[in-house]
Amino acid sequence: MTAEILAVGTELLLGDTLNTNAQYLSKELAGLGISVYHHSVVGDNPLRLKKAFSDAFSRADIVITSGGLGPTKDDLTKETGAEFFGKKLLMDEEALKTLESFFTRTGRIMTENNKKQAMLPEGAILIPNKNGTAPGCIISDDNKTLIMFPGPPRELIPMFEEVVQPYLKERTDGTYVSRVLRLCGVGESTAEDMIKDLIENQTNPTIAPYAKLNELTFRVTAAAKTESEARHLMEPVVAELYKRFGEHIYGEGNNLSLAAVVVQKLIEKNMTIAVAESCTGGLMSSAFVDIAGSSAVFLEGLTTYSNEAKIKRLGINEDTLKNHGAVSLETAAEMAANISKISGADIGVGISGVAGPGGGTDEKPVGLVYVALCVKGTVTVNELKYTGNRQRIRGRAVMSTLDMIRRALI
Amino acid sequence: MTAEILAVGTELLLGDTLNTNAQYLSKELAGLGISVYHHSVVGDNPLRLKKAFSDAFSRADIVITSGGLGPTKDDLTKETGAEFFGKKLLMDEEALKTLESFFTRTGRIMTENNKKQAMLPEGAILIPNKNGTAPGCIISDDNKTLIMFPGPPRELIPMFEEVVQPYLKERTDGTYVSRVLRLCGVGESTAEDMIKDLIENQTNPTIAPYAKLNELTFRVTAAAKTESEARHLMEPVVAELYKRFGEHIYGEGNNLSLAAVVVQKLIEKNMTIAVAESCTGGLMSSAFVDIAGSSAVFLEGLTTYSNEAKIKRLGINEDTLKNHGAVSLETAAEMAANISKISGADIGVGISGVAGPGGGTDEKPVGLVYVALCVKGTVTVNELKYTGNRQRIRGRAVMSTLDMIRRALI
Repeated sequence: MTAEILAVGTELLLGDTLNTNAQYLSKELAGLGISVYHHSVVGDNPLRLKKAFSDAFSRADIVITSGGLGPTKDDLTKETGAEFFGKKLLMDEEALKTLESFFTRTGRIMTENNKKQAMLPEGAILIPNKNGTAPGCIISDDNKTLIMFPGPPRELIPMFEEVVQPYLKERTDGTYVSRVLRLCGVGESTAEDMIKDLIENQTNPTIAPYAKLNELTFRVTAAAKTESEARHLMEPVVAELYKRFGEHIYGEGNNLSLAAVVVQKLIEKNMTIAVAESCTGGLMSSAFVDIAGSSAVFLEGLTTYSNEAKIKRLGINEDTLKNHGAVSLETAAEMAANISKISGADIGVGISGVAGPGGGTDEKPVGLVYVALCVKGTVTVNELKYTGNRQRIRGRAVMSTLDMIRRALI
Repeated sequence: MTAEILAVGTELLLGDTLNTNAQYLSKELAGLGISVYHHSVVGDNPLRLKKAFSDAFSRADIVITSGGLGPTKDDLTKETGAEFFGKKLLMDEEALKTLESFFTRTGRIMTENNKKQAMLPEGAILIPNKNGTAPGCIISDDNKTLIMFPGPPRELIPMFEEVVQPYLKERTDGTYVSRVLRLCGVGESTAEDMIKDLIENQTNPTIAPYAKLNELTFRVTAAAKTESEARHLMEPVVAELYKRFGEHIYGEGNNLSLAAVVVQKLIEKNMTIAVAESCTGGLMSSAFVDIAGSSAVFLEGLTTYSNEAKIKRLGINEDTLKNHGAVSLETAAEMAANISKISGADIGVGISGVAGPGGGTDEKPVGLVYVALCVKGTVTVNELKYTGNRQRIRGRAVMSTLDMIRRALI
């Protein structure tokens, strides 16, 4: 089965919006074993949109659109799709009810234009939208299927997960099962070298590596008649990956984050944590607070950006700052020890570094970061060296710190 | 003149890579007044690639490709492009020299495969690549132009800026000039309503609105024979926008951020700031620290996530917490006043809210956030209500807080 992704919106062609939907949908379709050979983007123009539909259906069984379901006269995706299938648009009572309740809930006034959004092509399956006003829908005949989503990813993603993924799963031959292994603390090229033999000889299951900010994932996908058969096929490969990468693997799953794993481990061990940070400036605390339920373990975070704040708030020794500087092993160690002491947390974290672009010296260049952990009184410090811009250095420092905490908790 | 963007690479179709090049190139082409009506993505497949070339050239004068210029036999973009123009590939001595020096500089071994990368279609213009091994090139005849780039953005972007932008500028009729006005504190639909008449009657210049997380931009673009003529044409429209939106406009420019504007204003007024935050948990501090040079004005940030931290670190009155709760106007006000006092900052910021998904009540639902500012001893508090998930609520609260600070500084 082949699918094609068609994004509709002039804002994409002007470069005002990044087409993240194409990536998300492609990843999900790959996981279902559905091949994607084309992505395309067209603007809100009736003729070009119509041609895009016919081009896409000349190549693929399934066309998935995003965008152009809004209330204005520029939004034409649904009309064009219905016309392509020779269907009329009819008011969908369920969609209208959802729409009305959305407007009531958010205290907004519903206009006649908005009502248009509740109209669906005759015989279409409704895809309810809990996070916005435009519902999606599925139209199909014997040969082809059209699936239409609104553009905003926060609307599209839950709609795909709740309705479209099960719909497609039912219609694919056999089953594809994927497991996503998440790694940190190992570089992309090193990791790929470590499993070169596995990647070169792969047929079923396949292993797809993917690198992101200080993080690496391997998606292992197996195809089989049944799900249990696919899982069985996958097991020796996954076991081999665990054997080779050991503690570098921090968990499994598409939506898992390293911060969530650390919070979960802290909860299990009934341990609390507090943070004192300088160059990462709140980003480390924020990584914890981002995880729902982190209040059970995360006590507080101090962004002691100035030396005065380091002294007054954290009680860092003035001599340490004078003799070793704010960016030093010694200062980071004191930050970790002192935040642990004053907050009463089991683990204290201290981070100090040069995020750039200014402030670097030969001795302490941009990208140098010290991360210290004080776990129940015992302090360890890592010296890290990064390249890249300010945002990248700060982000990578946070990921490395989370990984240090995770390894300390194993 | 019209252009089309064709990205080549199976990794894009599998969702392993996000097509940021299409966005970057679209934005740049819009700035040059070149219309883009289609983006497409195909994999490393010779037949589909060939068809994609002919489809693209049936619609556009210029086709810009990214990807598929690597050394392996999967990389076919250059071969397919040369064939489409009826040109042979020849060794380019300049490209070969650059390639050899790249390998010497990075200490890598150059293979025969790599040499293939220095071959260009006969008569093509070389686009040197300082950050990678694959050079780009431009082929053109009377009717059409093909511009080929390697895939990695950090290679493509400088190649576009150094060679392709001047090349295209020379070939476009007249000049297009854009100004990007950035607004906050006003919703997208309200803002569009306020200038409906301007948008409906626009010809030259045009106004393009674009909404992002609690922020809105208007891109005003004028076309004329000369740059000064274009700027002149644009002036009355921009003046009208300033007249209608006043203080909602926080600045101009593609890469300007609200945090950068606030830091700049604080520097100008020689004022310092410190933050006490709960639900935003470090994100507010991080927004400041993200701006290079913020250390001149940002003193410190406390993420007082637990009630104990609020009492011990900030000196929040226990009775305030008992009588009004941690999420309350009163607590936020005390947080702002106390952080200002203990840090000695001219401005203290206090943020407390319910980020969800748990923790909401009828009285204090998820999305309720109190933001307090204490400016030289005078406290003001805003009550804000957001929808969306935890990340969105936290992000929007930070944007609103930055806007409150900005308005307080005007």
